[in-house]
Amino acid sequence: MTRQELQEQIRLKKSMLCVGLDTDLDKIPKHLLDTEDPVFEFNKAIIDATHPYTVAYKPNTAFYEAYGVKGWQSLEKTVQYLKKHHPDIFTIADAKRGDIGNTSLRYAKAFLETMDFDSITVAPYMGSDSVKPFLEPRNKWVILLGLTSNPGATDFQTAALNTYHKPEPEMLYQRVLRISREWGSEDNMMYVVGATQSEYLKKVRAVIPEHFLLIPGVGAQGGNMQEVIENGLGSSPNLLINSSRGIIYASQEQNFGEVAARAASTLQQEMARFL
Amino acid sequence: MTRQELQEQIRLKKSMLCVGLDTDLDKIPKHLLDTEDPVFEFNKAIIDATHPYTVAYKPNTAFYEAYGVKGWQSLEKTVQYLKKHHPDIFTIADAKRGDIGNTSLRYAKAFLETMDFDSITVAPYMGSDSVKPFLEPRNKWVILLGLTSNPGATDFQTAALNTYHKPEPEMLYQRVLRISREWGSEDNMMYVVGATQSEYLKKVRAVIPEHFLLIPGVGAQGGNMQEVIENGLGSSPNLLINSSRGIIYASQEQNFGEVAARAASTLQQEMARFL
Repeated sequence: MTRQELQEQIRLKKSMLCVGLDTDLDKIPKHLLDTEDPVFEFNKAIIDATHPYTVAYKPNTAFYEAYGVKGWQSLEKTVQYLKKHHPDIFTIADAKRGDIGNTSLRYAKAFLETMDFDSITVAPYMGSDSVKPFLEPRNKWVILLGLTSNPGATDFQTAALNTYHKPEPEMLYQRVLRISREWGSEDNMMYVVGATQSEYLKKVRAVIPEHFLLIPGVGAQGGNMQEVIENGLGSSPNLLINSSRGIIYASQEQNFGEVAARAASTLQQEMARFL
Repeated sequence: MTRQELQEQIRLKKSMLCVGLDTDLDKIPKHLLDTEDPVFEFNKAIIDATHPYTVAYKPNTAFYEAYGVKGWQSLEKTVQYLKKHHPDIFTIADAKRGDIGNTSLRYAKAFLETMDFDSITVAPYMGSDSVKPFLEPRNKWVILLGLTSNPGATDFQTAALNTYHKPEPEMLYQRVLRISREWGSEDNMMYVVGATQSEYLKKVRAVIPEHFLLIPGVGAQGGNMQEVIENGLGSSPNLLINSSRGIIYASQEQNFGEVAARAASTLQQEMARFL
């Protein structure tokens, strides 16, 4: 999917909402457990109910891998279902991969070709040749970890570097943004920036004003949406704001789809004010 | 597997060899392609031939994921085969995972419980809570990326930090070693340190003298084994030296197993001189 196509969807739906499909058999409605593939059945129901308010879906691979081969099958079926029934919706493999070039090429093949996701999240620690193979497939995206929303983000990401930057030293995440933006363009790279760090959003935008940002942590992780949008939104729509548990586990009853749709609609309406 | 058990194997076999199972259908002997699961058949033959010289096997997950569900099945069968027939051999899921705590817990479950690998490689960028869940299962190991062997390692890993360290500033990878060693111990944490950077090995050993190091890059990536061992080996055996392509693709003929065994034996004999 191109940047222009994604932005058209955002304008059409007046939404920047990404729904995280972190599907956990211990948390989904009990009546689904009798079906042949409860993980897929749950995802399908959530997608069917929430897609009018949603421009992206983001399965996190960890939740699928935890169920072994069966989980991997559920993941494949989920992306196939999205591609077939909602080809206008952006798909994100939240996989946080990254390895030497030869190996990253395999991950790119797995997620961007075999499974045909539009994008994959990638970890930056191994540098340029670990990221660039993901940029090769046409109209596909890397979503690189910039500044994450978890407590451990301060262990390394905010470490100050010994380089000449005024008025204050550059932090590691700023270097990651500054160096990596040269590897691709605004048309094939996005960045993960944690919403709980929204005082940092201005600093991020100083380095990458127009790149799409994927913002996790609105909701369960505690980010404030209005603050995020005010500090993060560029001159054209360039934010994807993720919510996982707050939407998909809004109810465990028979009507969980409806309740998830209401939760998604509430977030979408907040976003619409800014679009 | 405990540190003591692994060291016993190293002493018994006079080997620190880890064989990387980066299995690629385009590179394995053609006669295997007619079997039901060529990836597993290849791995089984390589394991059967090389195990007398080998203390660890390391499948890289990217190679398996590139084949989708079928690849994941081959990976599961490979680790099951190792556990059943060679329970004394250390198994490494070279997966380079890492996510927020809740999610890393899922990856830990996938690789250290469901698949029962002894260890998993983990990326440090997201910090403590992304790594610690992998340290919870008993007698399992995190192998954290320290300094990798690829060209992109210099993009961030060797960035100098703005902290007071004499006689020279601390680099990011040194901070990763220094901070992360507190998250576990020498009994459940190892580090990936690229052999092509063997001038850095002394600096690594200054921070973590006794932790096991997993050294990739001997062979195809150009590291020199003697230099690695002289600079990296501690007071008790604490190195795993990986070779992938140089062993597993030593021949594409019918007798590829024998040829792989000879290649493994040659490396093992070099190592034996130091053990």
